[in-house]
Amino acid sequence: MVNYPNGRSQSYSAVPKKQKTLTGLSVAKKGAPKSKSLVAFGKRGMNFEAEINATNDYYLSRGLAVIHKKPTPIQIVKVDYPQRSRAKITEAYFRQASTTDYSGVYKGHYVDFEAKETHQKTVFPLKNFHEHQIVHMSNVLAQRGIAFILLHFAALDETYLLPSSYLITFYYEKNGLKSIPLAYIRENGYKIETNHIPRIPYLEIVNKLCEVQ
Amino acid sequence: MVNYPNGRSQSYSAVPKKQKTLTGLSVAKKGAPKSKSLVAFGKRGMNFEAEINATNDYYLSRGLAVIHKKPTPIQIVKVDYPQRSRAKITEAYFRQASTTDYSGVYKGHYVDFEAKETHQKTVFPLKNFHEHQIVHMSNVLAQRGIAFILLHFAALDETYLLPSSYLITFYYEKNGLKSIPLAYIRENGYKIETNHIPRIPYLEIVNKLCEVQ
Ligand SMILES: [Mg+2]
Ligand SMILES: [Mg+2]
Repeated sequence: MVNYPNGRSQSYSAVPKKQKTLTGLSVAKKGAPKSKSLVAFGKRGMNFEAEINATNDYYLSRGLAVIHKKPTPIQIVKVDYPQRSRAKITEAYFRQASTTDYSGVYKGHYVDFEAKETHQKTVFPLKNFHEHQIVHMSNVLAQRGIAFILLHFAALDETYLLPSSYLITFYYEKNGLKSIPLAYIRENGYKIETNHIPRIPYLEIVNKLCEVQ
Repeated sequence: MVNYPNGRSQSYSAVPKKQKTLTGLSVAKKGAPKSKSLVAFGKRGMNFEAEINATNDYYLSRGLAVIHKKPTPIQIVKVDYPQRSRAKITEAYFRQASTTDYSGVYKGHYVDFEAKETHQKTVFPLKNFHEHQIVHMSNVLAQRGIAFILLHFAALDETYLLPSSYLITFYYEKNGLKSIPLAYIRENGYKIETNHIPRIPYLEIVNKLCEVQ
């Protein structure tokens, strides 16, 4: 059995994705230390994904919920197997995720969500969502799972939970529109007041959604 | 937005893991085409993991359950960003998974399992499970999720579903023992009669477990 490092800290693999949402800005490209690029963004020195991960760690440690980020899907092309040392992947590519980023269990309920960030101030661009993610959310709802998106407006420092049903409706009914107006999100979603600990207390809203269900 | 290939077919990333459980046997090492290594094992020309994935595809296509295999966690060390072409990972390593392989939703219930295969005939080696996976299963049970393991005895061509509670009990009470006797699995688990379609109809048993809960 080969032993791989098993750091519980946020994985570097999250970075390239985040770079994409950050309008192409890439710290890694510019030669900065990779381990620092994770915390270089965001008003409070932590990016949105890292804040959610910290929140999930908190929920897990208190026995409140078991919710994890799925690993980034990677297509592996070439692997070296050096004698007496661990396998080394020498050619691989990022793949598009076929589901959402986060899933887990809260009081028996299946919880599934995607987290996205924008620098826009009045709309959330729909290009952040792929059709197969929308399909996945519909499938989850059909199985009576709790599905939503967490949206962070970085410029406003506002975070919303929007139940996936509203995203799906908007996506198919308004498919001429390229983005969701903030007003629609405010009307149909829930604002999350960010905390010190946990950073993004979304579980209170999930609890409401479970009760309604 | 970069577009990555989004094949729904089983990912190659599953292979190195499978090789480990197959007592070190490695097709890739011997220079065989990598794409074939996925189907080179197993009595019926399909390995256990691929059979589960096919089963999950079937359940998804019929609207019966939404259960996916999580991507293999990869620690990325070096990424090239060639101009006008997609990012290429040039150095990366397999990481140990901190949770289980499969999760999803069935009639609102959170479903979580790990699938393992052995060539042993009378016992299932416990070295196939890491302590943090056992801890994860305990956490899932504490949140009232449905947690189990699917065990395939390749030499016997027998497959069992063992609820995680029995694995956890065995793991902590008999921690001198290095493997679970098949008799214990037969007594506390459920034998799965493999089918043509779906290959491994475990959902019938999950349905029973939900009713008991
Ligand atoms: Mg995402
Ligand atoms: Mg596994």
